[in-house]
Amino acid sequence: MNKYVLSVLVENQPGVLSRVAGLFSRRGYNIDSFTAGHTENANLTRMTIVLEGNSQVLEQIKKQLNKLIDVVKITELKPEEAVYRELALVKIEADDSNRASILEVVEIFRGKVIDVAIDHVTVEITGDNNKILAFIDLMKSYGINEIVRTGLTALGRWNN
Amino acid sequence: MNKYVLSVLVENQPGVLSRVAGLFSRRGYNIDSFTAGHTENANLTRMTIVLEGNSQVLEQIKKQLNKLIDVVKITELKPEEAVYRELALVKIEADDSNRASILEVVEIFRGKVIDVAIDHVTVEITGDNNKILAFIDLMKSYGINEIVRTGLTALGRWNN
Repeated sequence: MNKYVLSVLVENQPGVLSRVAGLFSRRGYNIDSFTAGHTENANLTRMTIVLEGNSQVLEQIKKQLNKLIDVVKITELKPEEAVYRELALVKIEADDSNRASILEVVEIFRGKVIDVAIDHVTVEITGDNNKILAFIDLMKSYGINEIVRTGLTALGRWNN
Repeated sequence: MNKYVLSVLVENQPGVLSRVAGLFSRRGYNIDSFTAGHTENANLTRMTIVLEGNSQVLEQIKKQLNKLIDVVKITELKPEEAVYRELALVKIEADDSNRASILEVVEIFRGKVIDVAIDHVTVEITGDNNKILAFIDLMKSYGINEIVRTGLTALGRWNN
């Protein structure tokens, strides 16, 4: 099973998210992550979908997406032609005895502390999947309270 | 119309995205942004949904979500009790004449340049909605080629 990244530009119509998601689930295709956010155009939303499957599944999905009236453009973003990023917020158990050590690691990963309390810190970290996993792995020894990840987002390296 | 942020922990079942999205669309509720990514538990996905509506709509949505068998936990994350963040990738027209000015602004916003080509730069920026909009607004004078945003993600300030 490979992972494929699809960037799908859609019109902001009610139910568009449901129509796109439904297309995947009806055919049993696996979505690894999903983001949908605003774009440079107020009428359009860009979805970034990470799909698990083989190249045949990918081609079927692209064909099906193209049939949806709300879909404006579909781009497959291959690793060598795109930048991939994800945002994770990680809440870590921390007190006076280990906060400094945690902050050192955060610094190395170019993360940002966005909240501090007496018993935890919340860190914002961006990167590709491997970088985020490496950071989470290091933080496990301190104790992770909660993680939220946006799922992958991506842009092509070429100019439109 | 207000915006509400729901953090929804769901089991990684096939079609769960479609079931959640379908619940919103069938009732005509507006989703402002949507992210779904991995969590600290491989069997669970955390969705962050920004919903537009009034408090009545919010209560109905919570009730409906609670009825879905895949839904483990629903948390409303109010601004004063949570940290909100979003990741945007912005591709900006840039050449030798203006690249330095662009990089100055990127620095002020604590953004990161993640790709450079002869005619553009791609910048990663994180923050709340206002910060991202302010950055995009400043970049408009240089020319924006493409934007992708993850949609908002959030964690509660308290410890679980």
